[in-house]
Amino acid sequence: MKDLITTECYKKEDLLDIIDLSLTLKHCIRMGYYPPLLKNKTLGMIFEQSSTRTRVSFETAMEQLGGHAQYLAPGQIQLGGHESMADTGRVLSRLVDIVMARVDAHDTVKGLAEVASIPVINGMSDYNHPTQELGDAITMVEHLPSGKCLEECKIVFVGDATQVCASTMMITTKLGMEFVQFGPEGHQLSEQMQAIGRANCKASGGRFGVTDVMEDAFRDADFVYTDVWYGLYNKELSREERLKIFMPKYQVTDKMMRAAAPHAKFLHCLPATRGEEVVDEVLDAPYSVAFDQAENRLTAMRGILVYLLRDKICAEYKQKAAEAALAEMLFRIL
Amino acid sequence: MKDLITTECYKKEDLLDIIDLSLTLKHCIRMGYYPPLLKNKTLGMIFEQSSTRTRVSFETAMEQLGGHAQYLAPGQIQLGGHESMADTGRVLSRLVDIVMARVDAHDTVKGLAEVASIPVINGMSDYNHPTQELGDAITMVEHLPSGKCLEECKIVFVGDATQVCASTMMITTKLGMEFVQFGPEGHQLSEQMQAIGRANCKASGGRFGVTDVMEDAFRDADFVYTDVWYGLYNKELSREERLKIFMPKYQVTDKMMRAAAPHAKFLHCLPATRGEEVVDEVLDAPYSVAFDQAENRLTAMRGILVYLLRDKICAEYKQKAAEAALAEMLFRIL
Amino acid sequence: MKDLITTECYKKEDLLDIIDLSLTLKHCIRMGYYPPLLKNKTLGMIFEQSSTRTRVSFETAMEQLGGHAQYLAPGQIQLGGHESMADTGRVLSRLVDIVMARVDAHDTVKGLAEVASIPVINGMSDYNHPTQELGDAITMVEHLPSGKCLEECKIVFVGDATQVCASTMMITTKLGMEFVQFGPEGHQLSEQMQAIGRANCKASGGRFGVTDVMEDAFRDADFVYTDVWYGLYNKELSREERLKIFMPKYQVTDKMMRAAAPHAKFLHCLPATRGEEVVDEVLDAPYSVAFDQAENRLTAMRGILVYLLRDKICAEYKQKAAEAALAEMLFRIL
Repeated sequence: MKDLITTECYKKEDLLDIIDLSLTLKHCIRMGYYPPLLKNKTLGMIFEQSSTRTRVSFETAMEQLGGHAQYLAPGQIQLGGHESMADTGRVLSRLVDIVMARVDAHDTVKGLAEVASIPVINGMSDYNHPTQELGDAITMVEHLPSGKCLEECKIVFVGDATQVCASTMMITTKLGMEFVQFGPEGHQLSEQMQAIGRANCKASGGRFGVTDVMEDAFRDADFVYTDVWYGLYNKELSREERLKIFMPKYQVTDKMMRAAAPHAKFLHCLPATRGEEVVDEVLDAPYSVAFDQAENRLTAMRGILVYLLRDKICAEYKQKAAEAALAEMLFRIL
Repeated sequence: MKDLITTECYKKEDLLDIIDLSLTLKHCIRMGYYPPLLKNKTLGMIFEQSSTRTRVSFETAMEQLGGHAQYLAPGQIQLGGHESMADTGRVLSRLVDIVMARVDAHDTVKGLAEVASIPVINGMSDYNHPTQELGDAITMVEHLPSGKCLEECKIVFVGDATQVCASTMMITTKLGMEFVQFGPEGHQLSEQMQAIGRANCKASGGRFGVTDVMEDAFRDADFVYTDVWYGLYNKELSREERLKIFMPKYQVTDKMMRAAAPHAKFLHCLPATRGEEVVDEVLDAPYSVAFDQAENRLTAMRGILVYLLRDKICAEYKQKAAEAALAEMLFRIL
Repeated sequence: MKDLITTECYKKEDLLDIIDLSLTLKHCIRMGYYPPLLKNKTLGMIFEQSSTRTRVSFETAMEQLGGHAQYLAPGQIQLGGHESMADTGRVLSRLVDIVMARVDAHDTVKGLAEVASIPVINGMSDYNHPTQELGDAITMVEHLPSGKCLEECKIVFVGDATQVCASTMMITTKLGMEFVQFGPEGHQLSEQMQAIGRANCKASGGRFGVTDVMEDAFRDADFVYTDVWYGLYNKELSREERLKIFMPKYQVTDKMMRAAAPHAKFLHCLPATRGEEVVDEVLDAPYSVAFDQAENRLTAMRGILVYLLRDKICAEYKQKAAEAALAEMLFRIL
């Protein structure tokens, strides 16, 4: 895979590789060792909408691995504006090593990946949010219920069918988990998305469902995830409208959390609208791992960047890797 | 001290440590040695108002010490906007190593420091400007009158009671100098500020005064400092109003400089409004150290950053420091 | 030369040195070796207008050579605004190592160079675009017709007398090539520019012309260059106006290319307005080197930065250079 546009094109094993790589790099850095795997490499960051979390975590990730990230603010590059997308893609491919784009329309980042010869990362579109997916999967791996593996876990996503809801569905069903969206009619995953979930489950052995019955959704859930109630760009609801649709049934409260498994963890991609989709007692509870998730945006970015640039990491590291593999092999046959 | 929000909370000795550290690092870099003390460390820079000097000096400082600074332009992060300040602080604490914020309201940067687990630096608020204070103290140390120590020096601040005026008062009285503001009624330091000055002097042996009599203010002054006449955000005066209040009495001229000690130096935090608070013949005079001050913004930033991140500097440097201390000790007892 | 404001002040030999240096650095990086010649050095990038290509290539160049570039977006620094240009220049000279500025008025960048003690690079003005010149010269060196040297080559510039047209004229006549602008009356190089061309040719042995007769312009041309038809800031034409003036006579088509030498290459500084000054079949043809040109913006930036900062490159490299020169000399005399 040259790009990360959607995890749909990835095999489960590849995603697990990226997760493991991310966790290894996190551990290195915790130990005080910052491997300069991306030394002299440059990431171009194109933002059609402003973003803090994605931008900061990408920029920190590149710098921690010895590289550099260039911030191209909204308005600075017009993808498919005066210059054709193909020309912009070809030019960027000559000037930087890898590109990420946060876009309004999914087709923009998809189109950029097609015309660029360098890797392109989707930093969120109106369709999905794959770097968030990987950060969340890492968080779940770090917070597995005692004695359970990922494939034995159930996650319930509460509320609106935002890109984050779709993305959570995509990665959890791909990895073989059980995914349920608990949301009101008209705000449930589209038929197209549901088809992806079912296909993923068929391949992975996972399970998939959408319901507006809380008890069904929460029963034995290991993870409860929610997002704001106005995530889709062209349909943003007024506060009044969204409260009318989602309140109080879809607000995550401590009482609601008790309908899940006793060890259940709470996830939120942040920023949260406290008092709407979630209340303080949940977001600030010991079972909330939302701030670990935020940190794991950075964890995931490091893994994704090294994975996509693996052919370009410095020769010294390739040699070290080869030496280690050879030594292990020799040890086995001696 | 985790943060640098105001020098009020610092002891004189700590401020002298930061000044010495800054001067040592400046000397290293003059020698061509850039110690990579902040390698792989990331500074998040939040600006609620645009700024050149503060931004450029912070960014250069981080890079010269092996780290990196992320520029978050006005509008990119809303401190206390949709996301609660506490959430923003907790998230940033996971994604970067240290944060600076230039804010409209002092409470914003104070609040950020309270919720963040990483160090927070005040890059100027409507209350004070502590990084400027340290750069100015460094400049005064570099330009001490022959045979005099800092505690024997007098500084007169001419004009409006801007944040820079308040900050100059805070650090000079803390360090045991004599500080006088020469300014018109209605534009003199507030009673609250004057109380800080008197308390500082009580502890340090310094002296403090506010006057609109030029001869008193300038007598034997070693340093003369001025700033623009419209520094306070919510009270910016029109050009006509400010000229009426301050002109010609508070404009620093060569003639006025002659009322100070013969060796007196002129300081200005810049940018200057030439022809208002200061005339060309002063700002461009040999006794003007305003451009040294500008350079010492960078000098101070390096010292402040290393001081606040001292627990996180790379292990190699900690070992070097321990070895040197041990060697010196052994040499003494052998 | 402290600055790069216009290549007019450079000798042919100096430009050839920069070209050679750029090509050597490009080759190093292709080999996977990123020489950290600009370690700890900081470039301040001032943009009065937004730019992608120039900004991205400067920032990548600095990082690849171990340094760092600070992006100062339009509006962040006002050159000659409230603060005098002289003060801004003096302050920047204390805080960074080198500055580039893309400006509306040529006098701004010229003025900045006069007051700054550090090197200043013109990143395009309403007068010329010297970093583009060097990137284009590098591209021509890389695509010389078999058996020909630069001095034996002819370039025809088609269309409007933009800054890029003027710049192409300046460097090609300086290097001893034959330059012809093929453009309509009213959009031909000014008399002032033509005088520069004639003077350059007198010194270099090059040739210079301006014509609206296509056959004369294209005969035996080795390179065909075009740019958009609305390059001059204060005279931007509406689409209708420019089509009326330039279409169809000055649109570069495959048929037109056949009027040049059979081996002729097509150049474009990009971004292109496909369907106006050039058609797809030309820009995407095998003889189009426009995307190599885009990459050579980066190639040129590296050479220019190292050349202008040559006195500040790290001591280790100076010693290596001296050792190599000495060894070569000893080898010769032994």
